[in-house]
Amino acid sequence: MDYYSSQITKLIEELSKLPGVGAKSAQRLAFHIINMPKEQVERLSSAMTDAKNNVRYCRECFTLTDQELCPICANPGRDHGVIMVVENTRDLAAYEKTGKFEGVYHVLHGAISPMLGIGPNDIKLKELMQRLQGDVKEVIIATNSSLEGETTAMYISKLIKPTGIKVSRIASGVPVGGDLEYIDEVTLLRALEGRIEL
Amino acid sequence: MDYYSSQITKLIEELSKLPGVGAKSAQRLAFHIINMPKEQVERLSSAMTDAKNNVRYCRECFTLTDQELCPICANPGRDHGVIMVVENTRDLAAYEKTGKFEGVYHVLHGAISPMLGIGPNDIKLKELMQRLQGDVKEVIIATNSSLEGETTAMYISKLIKPTGIKVSRIASGVPVGGDLEYIDEVTLLRALEGRIEL
Repeated sequence: MDYYSSQITKLIEELSKLPGVGAKSAQRLAFHIINMPKEQVERLSSAMTDAKNNVRYCRECFTLTDQELCPICANPGRDHGVIMVVENTRDLAAYEKTGKFEGVYHVLHGAISPMLGIGPNDIKLKELMQRLQGDVKEVIIATNSSLEGETTAMYISKLIKPTGIKVSRIASGVPVGGDLEYIDEVTLLRALEGRIEL
Repeated sequence: MDYYSSQITKLIEELSKLPGVGAKSAQRLAFHIINMPKEQVERLSSAMTDAKNNVRYCRECFTLTDQELCPICANPGRDHGVIMVVENTRDLAAYEKTGKFEGVYHVLHGAISPMLGIGPNDIKLKELMQRLQGDVKEVIIATNSSLEGETTAMYISKLIKPTGIKVSRIASGVPVGGDLEYIDEVTLLRALEGRIEL
């Protein structure tokens, strides 16, 4: 790419490493960024490094946050006795957007997948079991309805049942094979209402 | 978006201002960036600010570059008597990729568009006319074959003809309404070879 000068080439290269950004989109983005107001470039650039440097796991639920406790775990108005287990922070956000769930979350950061070599110890499952030693009434499993999500749900329910804590799974209504974060809020709510005890 | 903490929200907001990045893609990109190695985030972030701070117009051809003269204008091996006029730096790159054009370029940074209120004085046309006072044999007009590109080509040819310098237009072969940067190299070369004098 010696028809571009080195700093443009470098920007295009770095941008094309992002997911879903091919060579052409990286070029378009690069020239867009060069033409943006300087302040906006600086805001974008520092938003990246700030987020990278300060975002960590919430001490309680392991969602990504820039505080020790995420806004949801820190909220005394939420029902800390009801824990919804999700695969990642985006799935948490999908349920938060419905505005109807008043419990708290637990983010696993993955799902059990023998195919990918991801076992129970590779996700935040031990941490979930530790939380159950507190005053917990119900665990709602809201992993994706994919093979990995279902496997994880079954695994978790078997772990929790001996403790006597109620375990439920969000209802079908979520299309099989679908990804939670892309599903409309009405379907998400229907799935929550129709949850069945495991 | 209070289900995300402020620094994640800020990153998502800044990312979603980029062209072609919607709310969902911004979320995906944000979490991808948070999970990238710290060094890679810093490389991306500083590539942006470096490019923004140092990239300017080439003194000769007005392409975007981080030097006073772009690599092409600074190359004594190129034929500085043949100038190809393009709308933007990406179109220049499209022709450079063919590896067969040995002249230099002139980047207009736009095309005449009465609809958008862009007139001859809003693009680098005066600067092109100044360059023609040097030793120039031919001007090849390679604006897009869109309405604006054709209008610009006609306008430029009428300006240059009285000077006696040869003016040509890249041949049809470039599909009408198409955008130069997305066209395959063979078609670009055919269009260059078949250029007709205006």
